[in-house]
Amino acid sequence: MEGASVDHLAHERIRAEFDVEAMKIAWAGSKHAVDVADRMARLVASDPVFKKDNRMMLGRKELFKNTLRKAAHAWRRINELRLTEEEASMLRIFVDEPGYVDLHWGMFVPAIKGQGTDEQQKKWLPLAYKMQIIGCYAQTELGHGSNVQGLETTATFDPKTDEFIIHSPTLTSSKWWPGGLGKISTHAVVYARLITDGKDHGINGFIVQLRSLDDHSPLPGIVVGDIGTKFGNGAYNTMDNGVLRFDHVRIPRNQMLMRVSQVTREGKFVQSDVPRQLLYGTMVYVRQTIVSDASKALSRAVCIAVRYSAVRRQFGSQDGCPETQVIDYKTQQSRLFPLLASAYAFRFVGEWLKWLYRDVTERLQANDFSTLPEAHACTAGLKSLTTSVTAIASLTYTVCNLSITVFQSCLIHYVETVLLKEAWALTEVLGMALKNVENYVVAMDIFVAVGFLSYLLSMFLPALTKEIMLFCFCSCNSSLSLCAAEDWLKPSVILEAFEARAIRLAVNCAKNISKFPSQEEGFSELSADLLEVAIAHCQLIIVSKFIDKVKEDIQGHGVKELLQILCNVYALSLVHKHLGDFISTGYITPKQGALANEQLRFLYAQVRPNAVALVDAFNYTDHYLGSILGRYDGNVYPKLYEEAWKDPLNDTVVPDGYHEYVRPLLKQKFTVSRM
Amino acid sequence: MEGASVDHLAHERIRAEFDVEAMKIAWAGSKHAVDVADRMARLVASDPVFKKDNRMMLGRKELFKNTLRKAAHAWRRINELRLTEEEASMLRIFVDEPGYVDLHWGMFVPAIKGQGTDEQQKKWLPLAYKMQIIGCYAQTELGHGSNVQGLETTATFDPKTDEFIIHSPTLTSSKWWPGGLGKISTHAVVYARLITDGKDHGINGFIVQLRSLDDHSPLPGIVVGDIGTKFGNGAYNTMDNGVLRFDHVRIPRNQMLMRVSQVTREGKFVQSDVPRQLLYGTMVYVRQTIVSDASKALSRAVCIAVRYSAVRRQFGSQDGCPETQVIDYKTQQSRLFPLLASAYAFRFVGEWLKWLYRDVTERLQANDFSTLPEAHACTAGLKSLTTSVTAIASLTYTVCNLSITVFQSCLIHYVETVLLKEAWALTEVLGMALKNVENYVVAMDIFVAVGFLSYLLSMFLPALTKEIMLFCFCSCNSSLSLCAAEDWLKPSVILEAFEARAIRLAVNCAKNISKFPSQEEGFSELSADLLEVAIAHCQLIIVSKFIDKVKEDIQGHGVKELLQILCNVYALSLVHKHLGDFISTGYITPKQGALANEQLRFLYAQVRPNAVALVDAFNYTDHYLGSILGRYDGNVYPKLYEEAWKDPLNDTVVPDGYHEYVRPLLKQKFTVSRM
Repeated sequence: MEGASVDHLAHERIRAEFDVEAMKIAWAGSKHAVDVADRMARLVASDPVFKKDNRMMLGRKELFKNTLRKAAHAWRRINELRLTEEEASMLRIFVDEPGYVDLHWGMFVPAIKGQGTDEQQKKWLPLAYKMQIIGCYAQTELGHGSNVQGLETTATFDPKTDEFIIHSPTLTSSKWWPGGLGKISTHAVVYARLITDGKDHGINGFIVQLRSLDDHSPLPGIVVGDIGTKFGNGAYNTMDNGVLRFDHVRIPRNQMLMRVSQVTREGKFVQSDVPRQLLYGTMVYVRQTIVSDASKALSRAVCIAVRYSAVRRQFGSQDGCPETQVIDYKTQQSRLFPLLASAYAFRFVGEWLKWLYRDVTERLQANDFSTLPEAHACTAGLKSLTTSVTAIASLTYTVCNLSITVFQSCLIHYVETVLLKEAWALTEVLGMALKNVENYVVAMDIFVAVGFLSYLLSMFLPALTKEIMLFCFCSCNSSLSLCAAEDWLKPSVILEAFEARAIRLAVNCAKNISKFPSQEEGFSELSADLLEVAIAHCQLIIVSKFIDKVKEDIQGHGVKELLQILCNVYALSLVHKHLGDFISTGYITPKQGALANEQLRFLYAQVRPNAVALVDAFNYTDHYLGSILGRYDGNVYPKLYEEAWKDPLNDTVVPDGYHEYVRPLLKQKFTVSRM
Repeated sequence: MEGASVDHLAHERIRAEFDVEAMKIAWAGSKHAVDVADRMARLVASDPVFKKDNRMMLGRKELFKNTLRKAAHAWRRINELRLTEEEASMLRIFVDEPGYVDLHWGMFVPAIKGQGTDEQQKKWLPLAYKMQIIGCYAQTELGHGSNVQGLETTATFDPKTDEFIIHSPTLTSSKWWPGGLGKISTHAVVYARLITDGKDHGINGFIVQLRSLDDHSPLPGIVVGDIGTKFGNGAYNTMDNGVLRFDHVRIPRNQMLMRVSQVTREGKFVQSDVPRQLLYGTMVYVRQTIVSDASKALSRAVCIAVRYSAVRRQFGSQDGCPETQVIDYKTQQSRLFPLLASAYAFRFVGEWLKWLYRDVTERLQANDFSTLPEAHACTAGLKSLTTSVTAIASLTYTVCNLSITVFQSCLIHYVETVLLKEAWALTEVLGMALKNVENYVVAMDIFVAVGFLSYLLSMFLPALTKEIMLFCFCSCNSSLSLCAAEDWLKPSVILEAFEARAIRLAVNCAKNISKFPSQEEGFSELSADLLEVAIAHCQLIIVSKFIDKVKEDIQGHGVKELLQILCNVYALSLVHKHLGDFISTGYITPKQGALANEQLRFLYAQVRPNAVALVDAFNYTDHYLGSILGRYDGNVYPKLYEEAWKDPLNDTVVPDGYHEYVRPLLKQKFTVSRM
């Protein structure tokens, strides 16, 4: 695909036992999706303005300016070529440089769409669509992250002027982190505590203009700037994450997003019958895109790792033969192939979440809010799980790579999950289950079916009934009927094991919680255990969605077979990793666990000849991968060597500083040591 | 310690139930060690030349020049103050900026000491000690990392001139990665294949001058440069990791390091009775320092994480009270406290490795090589284990931190372990066991005692005997006699469980290997399982060293008690994490596993009030930590806010690029979109 003269991985590609073109379609979702992605990827890769291999060498200011240039150029191309929304969004993905446009399209526009009235949408969306205004999403504050209800910024209604006064009362109320805010956004959706007539009505969203549309200077009462360099030289330093403080800034009343609640001309606070959870609609959308981003990031990391593992040789040389390809080591396979399988698993669960979001949105339009809590919890949990797996995987595999953007773009999401947030999001999955039984039951068909129902009921029915249910579980399904390694290949066996594990962990947890004086105390004391239950539940969802995918009608020689293998690798590697869960809940025996591990080795052997082709199916250009180690043609060493000389340190043979700081030392200018 | 006017963490420090000053001594090893560290840390922190908070903003060239300046200044201070070797090395640690001096002192000097003859040491060491020459360690090549025997660089003896001709025959033979090589080193210890009279005698070390001592230009036939920017803006971009190629470079015969092998004037290759493993001596030293570095990096990350978790509040606010401190969440404790315990565990095992290295060195001096293989394997395994734990921990905790050096300095070692090397090093632990039974048995007293002996024997005695041994294991110790959560607090119980797990995993593995047609094939097929055995074995070593430490006579109120708690946290969190191993080897029951988990919660509650004081005991200055989130005084938010404005992007209100790339877009200069 890259027009290389020699393909150093040709011997790998020839071994593939499936139709790579058909796999590309399975991965992308449709032939149409492959075509659009392919066209947009090539468009970006062939345009010198979108060059990105110089990012490591630019200072922050140059880097940022270059991002502005790319964004403007992308917008120009989108207009010149009259691209569709789908094509435009794909083009932005392949430009692969975090910038203000991401927040504009990814959060500002969806917030207005989701929380604005029809009238507000009519006014603001056309401006945003044409980029006559540029917006960001100002929620997080210096002292307040995940806990939206803890935000301190105030929006006080002034009935005299029919305005809200937006104010930052403390240092910790400073808005902090929003992307695009630092230097570019002209507007923001600002979340603040609504106060009318001295009464606090909680957090609401407000459209606030930040900068002059004439000269870009901050409007009166607004202090705004960039929060400084972030981790790593590439990726997120192209983004102007910002800090923002308000000193009694006035906005018209009609700039409060009023779909959920309204403030009347008289200053009366009115809540519509639309539940306040609507505010979470945007978060569901964002989390869903994060799962999708995690799948992209993981697949890029895996693509690089698989190709380089096929190029790199180490040890095992005998009688002058070449050393062994790293990918042939079982230790390497046992790390790499579960991640390869995870890349596919996350892709498919991400597609399902997209469907879920569309479904939720349609229901919201029709004032049906029944599935929102479940989508909220589900996306929160899957977001945390997929990003943490991806961040750690990327750490392992792309670290020594000259381009580090894959790692970064995922990491920035993972960061959000650090320090409680991850834990919180995951326990939310369970929290939702415990707090919204009905909602879950209504939404039951969407994901886990029978097992999950019992799991909820077992925790909510009165103690006696619960004991009966437990008895049912423990006796009827006391152990999996599985006695050969091949039995682990059956989807029904896998699904049953994951269901049993999730349910039994939950039941154990519920039992332990019931021993505490209060449910709150039990919840708090056992939250680490609850977290494990939530992880088990998320993994069950991912496994079941992968199984569903494989059941679909999939075209192409060998494609279905390979997906089945990857699905089994994903599931059995989790069985091995969480063996303690599976065995200690009594559902499988140590012997059955050993069989799963044995089967896993056979599966790795089946993946091995197809590994390079399986990452080729992601259809990523060298430009998008941005990695010498992951080059399509495998021509790694000459390119690494060639690149090295471009570093500014190699501009001169004798480095700047030699005469002042090295020569005096070599020439013994201060030898009074007693060493 | 930082002279802050207000201590925002005072309420935490007051809760400590032990003598922090005494804990500092336990951590550092002695009162003397605390004093030296304290003096050197303050010396560095108070010297403006050693300022490091501007590192994120410097371009590569400025960054590098600044490192040269720091190195020269450090050397000047070392001389002016007539510091001892111990003090000088401590000062370099606190300067905390990777640079050429690290390789000079850490690898060049030890290589000559370990592999040079007395005569060679007499000639080269004084020059190196005075820094009249600066050296590096040129082993790794572009195509060859861990597998030293695969190196391609040649050193061909020319009897006519009594010289070696050093040559890089291929692109992949280019030396690649050595620190200090890129721009600074005047000399290198170069590893190359020795060829005399057309015969290849394998890899040997050679002292090669690279640059002129007059004008620093590369000598004829030498191409040398920097390999370019590495991951992250801070840390390792201060190091000139280099690339080096030789075009028939001639050096005198006496610059081959000849302690192990010699080439005579006639070109005869002579091997001394000193085993070739002596070459590994330097690696043992380096790995030992890497374990020690990992302990430093982990403790820094943990220090930052604990303090910030005590400062940061999130959720749980009721009736206007402040939100809950993040450190009070059990989910947070279950992540953080095992890492806090690991920091102490790695520190103590690092101290033990230091002793082991000294012991090995003394023996080597006396031509006793018996313990070298074991030290080699042991340091390899522990290096991999400690750095991977640290890298992942740092990822979790220091990622959003403005200074990222902690993460980096560990990561750079972790990188080495990526792609096989880690796996290789860990299996080496086991590999050594299988290949050098005698050595292990001789060295037995050094680490694992009785259990390990049986474990080796069970694999080496003939099949019948093995079955008998297995029978003994399975019947005599079929299960741990443990029925209450408190029983898990007994060191003997913990040690027995870890020994049983390591031994039984090994026995299972040996049994499975014996089913393969050949031992090689079994080894290769089951290498992922062997890796798990090796990890179990390394964890056993760490746990047993921690238990030994607690048994020592330790001064200070509450110090011993807290160390005992941390030791238990370390061990039981591993039991929980690897529950599958412990249960499936049949040594503990699921019920006992659940008790360990329950006990862990009680232990966390005991750690909680002491957490901040336990990280204070590391005695790190704010300069060394280099983190706003980890500030001693907890005054995080105002400092974060203040720092943000220093970013170059905030130099101007309207960013560079606005007029060219943002304004035209806002003003609709190219609106032909069909969106």
